[in-house]
Formats: sequence, C-alpha cells, structure tokens
Amino acid sequence: MAFELTQELIDKIESLIEENRDQQLQTHLEEYHHADIAEVLDELSLDDATYIIRLLGSDQTSEVLMEMDDDDREKILGNLNAKEIAEEIEEMDTDDAADIISELSEDIKTQVISNIRDKEHAENIVELLKYDENSAGGLMAKELIKVNENWSVTGCMTEMRNQAENVTRVHSIYVVDNKGKLKGRLSLKDLITAPSKAEIGDVYIRNVDYVDVHTPGEEVARVMQKYDLEAIPVVDEFGRLVGRITVDDILDFIKEEAEKDYQMAAGISEDVEADSTIWELTRARLPWLILGLFGGLGAVYVMQGFDSALEKYEILFFFTPLIAAMAGNVGVQSSAIIVQGLANDSVKDSLVKRLLKEVSLSIINGTALGLLVIGFGVITSMAFLVSITIAISILSVIIMAALIGTFVPIILNKRGIDPAIATGPFITTSNDILGILAYFYIAKLILNF
Amino acid sequence: MAFELTQELIDKIESLIEENRDQQLQTHLEEYHHADIAEVLDELSLDDATYIIRLLGSDQTSEVLMEMDDDDREKILGNLNAKEIAEEIEEMDTDDAADIISELSEDIKTQVISNIRDKEHAENIVELLKYDENSAGGLMAKELIKVNENWSVTGCMTEMRNQAENVTRVHSIYVVDNKGKLKGRLSLKDLITAPSKAEIGDVYIRNVDYVDVHTPGEEVARVMQKYDLEAIPVVDEFGRLVGRITVDDILDFIKEEAEKDYQMAAGISEDVEADSTIWELTRARLPWLILGLFGGLGAVYVMQGFDSALEKYEILFFFTPLIAAMAGNVGVQSSAIIVQGLANDSVKDSLVKRLLKEVSLSIINGTALGLLVIGFGVITSMAFLVSITIAISILSVIIMAALIGTFVPIILNKRGIDPAIATGPFITTSNDILGILAYFYIAKLILNF
Repeated sequence: MAFELTQELIDKIESLIEENRDQQLQTHLEEYHHADIAEVLDELSLDDATYIIRLLGSDQTSEVLMEMDDDDREKILGNLNAKEIAEEIEEMDTDDAADIISELSEDIKTQVISNIRDKEHAENIVELLKYDENSAGGLMAKELIKVNENWSVTGCMTEMRNQAENVTRVHSIYVVDNKGKLKGRLSLKDLITAPSKAEIGDVYIRNVDYVDVHTPGEEVARVMQKYDLEAIPVVDEFGRLVGRITVDDILDFIKEEAEKDYQMAAGISEDVEADSTIWELTRARLPWLILGLFGGLGAVYVMQGFDSALEKYEILFFFTPLIAAMAGNVGVQSSAIIVQGLANDSVKDSLVKRLLKEVSLSIINGTALGLLVIGFGVITSMAFLVSITIAISILSVIIMAALIGTFVPIILNKRGIDPAIATGPFITTSNDILGILAYFYIAKLILNF
Repeated sequence: MAFELTQELIDKIESLIEENRDQQLQTHLEEYHHADIAEVLDELSLDDATYIIRLLGSDQTSEVLMEMDDDDREKILGNLNAKEIAEEIEEMDTDDAADIISELSEDIKTQVISNIRDKEHAENIVELLKYDENSAGGLMAKELIKVNENWSVTGCMTEMRNQAENVTRVHSIYVVDNKGKLKGRLSLKDLITAPSKAEIGDVYIRNVDYVDVHTPGEEVARVMQKYDLEAIPVVDEFGRLVGRITVDDILDFIKEEAEKDYQMAAGISEDVEADSTIWELTRARLPWLILGLFGGLGAVYVMQGFDSALEKYEILFFFTPLIAAMAGNVGVQSSAIIVQGLANDSVKDSLVKRLLKEVSLSIINGTALGLLVIGFGVITSMAFLVSITIAISILSVIIMAALIGTFVPIILNKRGIDPAIATGPFITTSNDILGILAYFYIAKLILNF
C-alpha cells in the first residue's frame, strides 16, 4: 500500500542495472506490484527500461507493460523484436493484447501475430482487432466463463474450474444454449449456494443485461454505471455470446472521456499531460490560440467601424474587455452545463422549456450585473446615459451568449458531432466578437452617434 | 437493456395512479429494473412518486430511492414519516443507508435510527455516520465476508454461505486473526479451487491492499484504479478490518470529482445540472460573473490611466479584447493541464523544469501569434511600430499568463486548497487585467507616449 516512487529507489535500480546485478534486481523487483514497477520504468531511460523488461519473465512484464504510459510503452516495444513482443502478448488477456497489437505498425503486427504459439489466443486477438476501439467489440475481452443451460450444477462446477484458469476475475458465469446464444447469467455465489443436484436451467437468472459488439463505448459506460454492473456480456449480430467487458476497463474509458471533455473546455485539443513534450503541447494548444487571435482581430475590425464615436464616448471603448469577458464567461457556463447534461443523458426538457429557462436565468444575472455597473457609474460620475447603455448591453450580451452557449452544443450533438468542441475557446471567441458587435449597435441606438 | 423513458410510459403510469389501479401498477413496475423505475419517478410529480414508493415493497423501493436524483429523493423522504424511512433503510446496505440518513435533518435522523429494528444494522450505520463523507470511512460499507485464518476451507465455505446472504457481491473474502486484524485475502475462485482439507492459513494471499478509515476518497480512487481493484478493505487505527469499499462507489466518486473540476473550470461553483432550478443555477453562476465584472471594471480603470495615448494611438485600445482573450485562454490552458496532472498525481518534474517548459512553450506560441499580428498589420497598413508593440505585448502576456496559470494551482495545492478553483474565471479575470496592464506599459515604453 505504501509504495512511493522516490529518487532513491530509481538511483538504486539504475546502479543495479549498470552493474548487471540481475539476480538482485529480480529479487528486488519481485516485491513490487506490477503497477509500481510500471511507474519505475516510466522514469528510467529507454535502455534501462528495456533491460528490465527483458530481464523479468513475460508473465510479470506483460502486466507491467499494460500499466505504463502509452508513449513509454510504445518506445520499449520498438526496442523488442516480434518474437519478444509475441511472448508478452501470450501472457495478456485478449483485450489488452489487441490494444497493444493495434498500436504496432502493420508489418510488425503480422509478424507478432504469427509468432503467438497459442493459436486460439491469436485467433481471438485477430477477431478483436476487427472492431472499432471505442465500440463494445473493441473494449471486450474473450476470456469469460460460460456454461450450457442443460448442464448440471456439479458438472458446471468442474467445467468452471477448468475455464477459470484463464480468467483473472470471475464476475458472472454466463449461460448459453446449444447454439451459443446468451440465455442468462449465474453468479458464483448462486452456484455455490445452489443444491448440487440442480440443473443450470433451473437456477440461472434469465434477465441479463448485455450489449452488442457495435454498441458505442459511451453507451456501455452509461449502462454499466446505471445498473451498477461489474461486467457485461457482449453478443454478436446473432445474439451469440462473444465476449465480456469488465468495470475496470470502463473505469479507464470514463476517465479518459472526462479528461478529454475537460481539456476541450480549456482549449486543448489533443490528449496531453503535464509531462508531454513541448511539441505535443504546442500542437494541442496553438490552434485554439490562433482561433482566439482571429476573434480578437475581428473585434478590432468592429471597433474601427465605430471609431467616429471615439471622440465623444471614449469610455465606451474602455468597456470592451468587460463586455467580451461577460459574453465569454456566460457562454462557457451555459455550454458546460449542456455538454455535461448531454454526456449524462439528463437533458430531458423540451427545447422551448430550456430556452425559457436560459433567458430567465440570463435576465436575473444580467439585471444584477447591470445594476452593479450603474452603481459603478454613479460612483465614478459617468454620464448616466452611458451607464444605462453599458448595463443594457451587458443584459443583452448575456442573454445572447447564454442562448449560443446552450444551443450550439445541442445542435452539434443532434448532428452527431461531439458537443464538447463547443465549450471553451470556440464559444468564447464567437461570443466575444458577437458581444462587442451587439454592444456597439446598442450604444449607437441609445447614444445616437 | 432496451429500456427507454417515453412520455407514453409516464402517461400510462400517471393514469394508473389516478385510477388507483394498484395491482396493475405493481405488476407493471415489477418488470423494470430499479434504476429504470428511479428514472420514471424523477419525472413524476412528488405526490405520484411518493404514491409509488408507498405502494411497492421496501425491498424494491430502497434500491429505487438510491438511484434517484438527490433533490427528488430528498423531497420524497420529506413526505415519508420516520417509520417509513426506517423501513427503507432496513433494506439498504450500510453505506447507502448512512448516505441517506446524513441527508436528513437532525431530529428526523434520531427518530429514523431508533425505528430501525435490526439493532446491529443501526449500530453499523451510526458508526459510518462518524466519518467524513469523502474519507474511506465515509465511503465504506460494513457488509463484507471475513474468515479467521485458523479455520479450515470446509468450515469457511459454510460460514461464508451464511455471511454471503447480507452481501450483494462477493469480491474477496478477507482473512483476519483472532483480534480481528486484517491478515490477507482470498478470492472466491481460490476458495473453490482449494483442496477442502486445507486450512485458510495455508491458502490465503498475504499481500493485500488496504486503506484506513481516514484515507481521503481521492487517494482511495487512485489506489483502486492503479491496482485495478474491485474492492478494497478498510482498517481502523489498530489495523482491524472494519469495512470495504467497492468499485461502483468509487466509480461514482470519480465521476463526481471529474464533473466538479469541469464545472469549476467553466465558472460554476455548485453542483448543478441542466435541470436544476433557476435559483440554484443563479447561485452557482452569478458569483463568477461578478468576479469577471470587477475584472472588467479594473480594465476600464487601467485604460483611463492611459487615455492620453488615445488621440495618437486609438488603435491600441481596439486591441484590448484581443490581449485579454490571449491572456485568458493561455491561463486556462496552463491551469487545466496542471490541475489534471495534480489530480492524476503525474506532475513529477521539478518546479524549475516546469518553469522552463512553460516559458519555452509560451515563446513558441507567442512568437507564432506575434508574427500573425505583424502580418495583419502589414495587410491593414498599420504603423509598423504599433504592430511590433502589439506582437511583443502578446508574447509577454502569454508568458505571464502561462506562468500564473501554472503556478497558482501548484501553490494552492501545496497549501491544501483544491487547485481546480484556480481554473476558469478566477485565472481568466486576473490574467485579463494583468495582461491589459502589461500591454499598456509595454506600449508606453516602445511608443513613448
């Protein structure tokens, strides 16, 4: 429990590697959980990490590889030959194996697959590679325990003991008919507590949740969360049981999705981490900044169009960052709420009801902020009509920004585009420039310049 | 699998309620999963929902209540008396029961607890109520299967069958010594495959991950994810096994944390959803908008201080929204990356290394954006010195914003404050105003006004 990655530990391992003290290294590393070894390897140089992967048995290293950073793992695999990779693959569950193989280049992929000795394992992996990685087929593993509905409980226990050797964790035992169609499930607990003379057909639970191979990952995650499932069986087009997805894979999936949405809202378009390279970070961040730049240049253009007002109402121009900030902030708030609601499938109100709600909310917020600005105007003895202009503009801009922030994600979602793209810089930039435009039109109307 | 919440279904249930056709309602609802019934109840009026809760048996409704929206559940519980609530509690696992009871007002709480007939259940709940809801103690349930290390495998099977009745899902069997101290674990699979004459002491796994009652929820989530655990035992100060946390509770916890961070980044300070009330939404959103307003007024103040430059360099003032947008966007990007890194415990670089990285990144991005502005200046025949001023300002402001966005969260985190607060409006507003200030100082220096 108390594992901590210290510089001391890394130094020690590095010196053991340098001195080729393999025996000691092995004994030392055996004490650690594979997830801890993965953390150590992520910190070592590529050569040192490869050294350890080669040193340890593939039963241990296959799990270590799975827990490593994708980038670091890819580099290590690049150092290994096809036979070595196949040995690692041999020890992995089919879903992990398929993930790893799909990361390899085409020619290495074929070589690795042909080097897998367990032909059934290889076939299972090849089957999984067919599916989109974000579909149930791409997320599932072939390892599961299935029994025939016609078997007896005792026969089932024996059979299950054999099958269980390949399955790390037994969540459910799936019941199929003679054609392999999924009929129901049985928990290990049910099996243990059932009378040994009973037939499976008498004791299994007929009501079983399942997904098919083409169900999108988001939907699998939603179903598993909603019904608190620890594993879900996957069927093919004919209803035949072909795999199962476990909750730990879905946990990773949910986390990645949440992180992606979060980064999108912050204007980061690729999956980067604090320790990604400068080049990766630039590629993820610069495009959004350029978008913001064009928005800002648009605002310059708008203001140039109104520069006749500059002489008499210079104060109006000082308020443009405030107007832009209000429009931007409200847009991000509204879009974030909608994007999250869409992700959780909890946006149930009708469009009209939602529209009315956003408008009412904006009127409340806009009025409060408008009054504050008028108060500020009084304190700083601003011309009253100018204060009124700014207050009315804030109110209008907030209503506009809230509507854009709400409806752009809804429309994108309806068209099958990820609505998360409409949070962050995209919505901020368009609201900035539209807000400033609206502001000057309102000012022109009221102040008559 | 194919449950869909339709208006038709809701209409049907509403009319059955109106006509008091209890028998039909019951038969109809029995077909649905409790999570589906919860969805229906969330859509019904409070009276109708209460009607159904009273109609169905508490073995079914306790699970329905757990799946409902917090707000809707609270209202229904407000309609029930202490005895009725106690009946629901009686059917719940201790962790769920404690969550529900902690939502009640103090006097109802005592009444409900005294109405629980199963005294051991009541005592367990009272014990759980002692812990902070975000600690391992607050997340754990008392339901678990434990066996003594001195028992035989056969005796253990019998004992386990008895205990298993109270436990919905058996993940692991925990092994304790005579004093109740956690010694190790045993999977159901291990138990089934062990020779029946063996003693538990010979077959259990001594290396068991655990947390103690005071471990924060974030740490529990991190450990369970890192080691792919489906359940983790919780020990007290003396190492005695007192509960276990299952992965489905942690899944909810992780999702809530991710949503909280996401909302914080979008300037939403309370846990709201798309269908929260206008008042709840206002309370969550308005404070951040007021913060933004003060930022904007600060910018007005800054610009008033430089208004002597207005006559000669009015164009400078048109660029303020652009400068503010750049500062804001960069700040949000940098802070989002750091906040996510801190949450994943993956910020391992030293402060100096991180500083160098952010500065290099900002120089690359700032130079690219600066060159674009100079290009824009050439096209629109802007005075060259003004273009240069703006380009240099963008570069400087981006560096500044990146440093603030990176270090404010790190500092907050070191002081034990949730760094997520430093994303979104907070960082945008302070960067807006500091950016505009820096911009005019740089302009003053270069253009000499």
